[in-house]
Amino acid sequence: MNGIRTIWNEGRAAILGWVHIPSLLAVETLARCGYDGLVIDLQHGEADLASAMPLLPAILAAGIEPLVRMQANDAGDIGRMLDFGAYGVIAPLINNAEDAARFAGALHYPPQGVRSFGPRRPPMRHGSDYFAQASQTIVSLAMVETREALDNLDAIIGTAGLDGIFIGPADLSVALGKPPRADTEDADVLSAIRHIIARCKAGGRKVGIFCNDGSYGRRMIAEGCDLVSLAPDLTMMATAARASVQAARA
Amino acid sequence: MNGIRTIWNEGRAAILGWVHIPSLLAVETLARCGYDGLVIDLQHGEADLASAMPLLPAILAAGIEPLVRMQANDAGDIGRMLDFGAYGVIAPLINNAEDAARFAGALHYPPQGVRSFGPRRPPMRHGSDYFAQASQTIVSLAMVETREALDNLDAIIGTAGLDGIFIGPADLSVALGKPPRADTEDADVLSAIRHIIARCKAGGRKVGIFCNDGSYGRRMIAEGCDLVSLAPDLTMMATAARASVQAARA
Amino acid sequence: MNGIRTIWNEGRAAILGWVHIPSLLAVETLARCGYDGLVIDLQHGEADLASAMPLLPAILAAGIEPLVRMQANDAGDIGRMLDFGAYGVIAPLINNAEDAARFAGALHYPPQGVRSFGPRRPPMRHGSDYFAQASQTIVSLAMVETREALDNLDAIIGTAGLDGIFIGPADLSVALGKPPRADTEDADVLSAIRHIIARCKAGGRKVGIFCNDGSYGRRMIAEGCDLVSLAPDLTMMATAARASVQAARA
Amino acid sequence: MNGIRTIWNEGRAAILGWVHIPSLLAVETLARCGYDGLVIDLQHGEADLASAMPLLPAILAAGIEPLVRMQANDAGDIGRMLDFGAYGVIAPLINNAEDAARFAGALHYPPQGVRSFGPRRPPMRHGSDYFAQASQTIVSLAMVETREALDNLDAIIGTAGLDGIFIGPADLSVALGKPPRADTEDADVLSAIRHIIARCKAGGRKVGIFCNDGSYGRRMIAEGCDLVSLAPDLTMMATAARASVQAARA
Amino acid sequence: MNGIRTIWNEGRAAILGWVHIPSLLAVETLARCGYDGLVIDLQHGEADLASAMPLLPAILAAGIEPLVRMQANDAGDIGRMLDFGAYGVIAPLINNAEDAARFAGALHYPPQGVRSFGPRRPPMRHGSDYFAQASQTIVSLAMVETREALDNLDAIIGTAGLDGIFIGPADLSVALGKPPRADTEDADVLSAIRHIIARCKAGGRKVGIFCNDGSYGRRMIAEGCDLVSLAPDLTMMATAARASVQAARA
Amino acid sequence: MNGIRTIWNEGRAAILGWVHIPSLLAVETLARCGYDGLVIDLQHGEADLASAMPLLPAILAAGIEPLVRMQANDAGDIGRMLDFGAYGVIAPLINNAEDAARFAGALHYPPQGVRSFGPRRPPMRHGSDYFAQASQTIVSLAMVETREALDNLDAIIGTAGLDGIFIGPADLSVALGKPPRADTEDADVLSAIRHIIARCKAGGRKVGIFCNDGSYGRRMIAEGCDLVSLAPDLTMMATAARASVQAARA
Repeated sequence: MNGIRTIWNEGRAAILGWVHIPSLLAVETLARCGYDGLVIDLQHGEADLASAMPLLPAILAAGIEPLVRMQANDAGDIGRMLDFGAYGVIAPLINNAEDAARFAGALHYPPQGVRSFGPRRPPMRHGSDYFAQASQTIVSLAMVETREALDNLDAIIGTAGLDGIFIGPADLSVALGKPPRADTEDADVLSAIRHIIARCKAGGRKVGIFCNDGSYGRRMIAEGCDLVSLAPDLTMMATAARASVQAARA
Repeated sequence: MNGIRTIWNEGRAAILGWVHIPSLLAVETLARCGYDGLVIDLQHGEADLASAMPLLPAILAAGIEPLVRMQANDAGDIGRMLDFGAYGVIAPLINNAEDAARFAGALHYPPQGVRSFGPRRPPMRHGSDYFAQASQTIVSLAMVETREALDNLDAIIGTAGLDGIFIGPADLSVALGKPPRADTEDADVLSAIRHIIARCKAGGRKVGIFCNDGSYGRRMIAEGCDLVSLAPDLTMMATAARASVQAARA
Repeated sequence: MNGIRTIWNEGRAAILGWVHIPSLLAVETLARCGYDGLVIDLQHGEADLASAMPLLPAILAAGIEPLVRMQANDAGDIGRMLDFGAYGVIAPLINNAEDAARFAGALHYPPQGVRSFGPRRPPMRHGSDYFAQASQTIVSLAMVETREALDNLDAIIGTAGLDGIFIGPADLSVALGKPPRADTEDADVLSAIRHIIARCKAGGRKVGIFCNDGSYGRRMIAEGCDLVSLAPDLTMMATAARASVQAARA
Repeated sequence: MNGIRTIWNEGRAAILGWVHIPSLLAVETLARCGYDGLVIDLQHGEADLASAMPLLPAILAAGIEPLVRMQANDAGDIGRMLDFGAYGVIAPLINNAEDAARFAGALHYPPQGVRSFGPRRPPMRHGSDYFAQASQTIVSLAMVETREALDNLDAIIGTAGLDGIFIGPADLSVALGKPPRADTEDADVLSAIRHIIARCKAGGRKVGIFCNDGSYGRRMIAEGCDLVSLAPDLTMMATAARASVQAARA
Repeated sequence: MNGIRTIWNEGRAAILGWVHIPSLLAVETLARCGYDGLVIDLQHGEADLASAMPLLPAILAAGIEPLVRMQANDAGDIGRMLDFGAYGVIAPLINNAEDAARFAGALHYPPQGVRSFGPRRPPMRHGSDYFAQASQTIVSLAMVETREALDNLDAIIGTAGLDGIFIGPADLSVALGKPPRADTEDADVLSAIRHIIARCKAGGRKVGIFCNDGSYGRRMIAEGCDLVSLAPDLTMMATAARASVQAARA
Repeated sequence: MNGIRTIWNEGRAAILGWVHIPSLLAVETLARCGYDGLVIDLQHGEADLASAMPLLPAILAAGIEPLVRMQANDAGDIGRMLDFGAYGVIAPLINNAEDAARFAGALHYPPQGVRSFGPRRPPMRHGSDYFAQASQTIVSLAMVETREALDNLDAIIGTAGLDGIFIGPADLSVALGKPPRADTEDADVLSAIRHIIARCKAGGRKVGIFCNDGSYGRRMIAEGCDLVSLAPDLTMMATAARASVQAARA
């Protein structure tokens, strides 16, 4: 059973780390810092599919779930990440029902979807019976982060074969005419976030959001989120480095 | 002029970052956090010579100095790092005058040393006249971290062609029969550190030390150190990650 | 002349190896084991476009043909593989005439297709006249492996600019509601395979199939296949390793 | 301000190098040979997105502009190159207004376009205000190189959000039924080139072209081009190598 | 506790795989084929230190021990492999007591040896107490494969800090004037092998040997070996590939 | 038979290219420009052992010989390059008879040398009989480039198991108190070069030299050299690029 799904089944929220630096050692270290999973960001991070390949099993070996945020809603790339051990997929820029259906199709074998068979790592975890249980082992979240997506929110939420929605607050802010911000306090953006959470609840789907500060993450869980990601590795490192230098120079 | 040397000429201490993660993006980011230079650790970090190659000019492009801590006191490897843009070299396990002389030899062209000519990146910074000024562009520190090195301290300090000593507190602690620790408060180890600092001062050489906390770094500067390195990237990231998760779970 | 095409012209079937492990040494070794060509699997293997780049000329240097199974029916990726020395292309999930036409378009220069000019390795083999003979140097097979593809079989077979069909038995089994299997004995799947072979013969096109056991490959040749691929490197290695350990423990 | 744009504002033409070899050292060297920018060719060169990543900041560090010629008109890939420090984008095979609009959309944040926010390197150059000025920092050229593109030339030129057109003479020659050639003297192709230049001028847009010889580049500038690229690294190297061997054997 | 040591403590022999192909997927697969550990061959395989880095934790994640056969008896390289998760080290060409002492020194922290402190992966397995238990977690075997080594056999065997001897039959054959062979039936070489086994037994040390066939491995265990390695991945793959092609062509 | 040796047996001089850029495509291209072999420079070029691995067979596939200039006179590294397909080895900084003997030892199997058996690529060229003929397939040149080496010239030349001497003119110039130059016209350095050539002739050994201009190479052949290397790839590219830009700007 996917660890994220287990957490959800227990009524809890999952707390994820966010990987911008595709260093195996860094990821092995982060994977032992208390997160429930790590998201390798293939869109805005330094990692791509190739550099994500060794990271996925390393995260699993630490006892937590490896997820990816795709660069795009591409069935071939999604299939590849699943074949090599991603157990969660976040797809960016899901703007309408058609995007959502294409995303869902990439995640499941026929007849539910169009995934091609050829898993390399999952049978190491799930055994030779992986084909039958594959859909259960994967969590999937569609990113809602544009005005078009807000307009088609219920249709996206209602798409079969997806677990729910992941909110991208920076792009969502831009969509609403605001500067790009995570951990936003902008009233309009917060209102949109609450609206998305509410519609997901109404539709019986999970909802997650990208955060920076742990305290903002806790607040989003209190707002109803089933999953939050916290500050990317790179952000944490830079913040700590500046403080370290300052302490030495003081 | 090497930026570290400029700082020394101004009577100040240099503050360095320490790189365990050979991610170009991470290093470009760290290089803009206020350090005077970054040390790529080829001995205990994830980087090796090949992965250090793109990092060296990226550090320089941020306006600070790129240094390397070698895996070993190997003339071929040192020459390669110099040819590709390291402007500071820290060599581990310099235990006696012979080790120190070998290290110094690797750093300088004949007749001072045995470096082979074929610089690739330094002429991009220093022009076609690099050969004549090469020795001036490089800072070099021999690591004193064993009992044998303590026994031969003055001979190492007195070696021509080196700028000074870099103290490795973890190995030094082990050498003195203590558990390996940076930022040590162990009286015997601190006494050894002060002894090394004093002998360097007496010998007219620079002295540096590996630290974790910025405040410990400041203290070592107050003790007389001309250079301190602060917490490695990986250490900072892990500490911040644990705090982040804790804040979200609280 | 492409070696596969020569074999076909002689009325024989081509026997291919299947590469899941993008190790240059492994591929150089496999390329000398008697195959007529090696297929680098970019969809379900560890290789991607970047890691396939050095493998393609290494296969050719052994005197056999380098082929690729694409991750997707993507004209940009196909062009890149052709520019860097693939002489056979197998495209997955060709489900209808439009997919097939898009695949064919990617393989040929205008006016037959839309391939962009800029070959890097083929002129090393074919000389400065490569542009004129390019289409003749490439073999191309469209994968039929879904129910939709079965429904559109004749349209796919009839597409100009393709050599024929490659059967993916695992996905085809799934499409027919059976568990994914190569070397299948399932009557329905075998019946579909024979149907595809027959339609290709009727349409004057080549037909190939993915197999595991050499004996099954021989059987498929007897059934009319013009090309068979045999067990992937990884599969052979794992089977042999288990036997080796068993022999030692016995 | 983008250096190419500055040159244009001064009424001059920009002269670019063309990179087929993704060697960091080679690119650092080329970037100091007098070009105004270097184009990393992701379509027909050895570089791909991953190998381009370290090259982009190295070009910038030499004081000139890093550009990319994409493998395809793909918004995800374009966004990635922008996030990691490309300041110019040339997209191949822009054949109609829809292609051009998709290309323009990938380059700009909403509401002008659909670029997703998450720049990694540009804030190192432009500061925290990058979002507001992003569009100004990027130059963009759509490749006209097919018959369809010629038919839709004014619609492509008229697309908002693009700087202009880049002529691919080899593919353009093929489109006109001629063998693929750069530095062409073919009357029909030259006529088409002059037509494209004239329409760009009429539409108030910039126009560039791929050349080999510097003298041909100078001629194209005289014909009205605002930007020329010169012989790829690989071509120059091979020509020089043959001459070198010949001189030694003579 | 190291799994190899546990097996030895139970009076059994360990059976190892031998890795010539540094593919992560291949190694993950081999690690689940029944071996007690995998040896990454850094001397004659395609792997080097850098490519071994991701393989070591992947082997451990499969529940068996990762070992390395070094390229040379180099303390810096050995330290690096230990810092990154090798739990067994086989050093080639140990020819005399001095070589053996140098090898042993590289394996242990002071005062037993000269290993420098900075483990990256072992604390993930053994916790913060790793320093104290490090020596217990590592198995070490010195290769005896030259005439000089045979002459100094008892001195090598008697070196403190090593677990025992690993026999390299191909080089040993050459040393005895025979062609290089594993699984040898040459009487002189077999006699030398038995002599080495006997001296190890007499000295209370472990002894292992490189084999190809599983049955030869079993025989060597019967002769007294505590550890055997079986056919390298590449050898198994090539043998199976030739058989596969033959079956298809028959 | 090694192609260089064949040329020598025919009384001709071999003309080599020099590789500073470890791009596979660049090397494949250079290998078809008329050279008799290419030297991958592991000391002052961008290539290291790992990046040289795919280049060696690519050079051979073009019908010429792959050579390496080592970073250092290291038996382990030399063995690795031989195992993976280098057919010529140039070792830097051979300063005395002991250095030369160590170099020779690394090249040959016992009893002539100490090379360890485990060739991976040479049997693909030479068959299963490679062990017996290995020494004949390799050419080897010791670099004379220091004052110490000049002092020990005859002893180096007289070392069994080496083919001859390779002159490094830049380091040799430095050794003689002159600025580092290839293609030197300095009377003292030219005199030293002629002295080395004469002693090699007297000792019945081959002699080669690093050159830049083809005409200087021709002159050195006239002076008696059996082998010359010409301008490195990077040098040729930079020279051509500057000329190209100048032509466009003129």
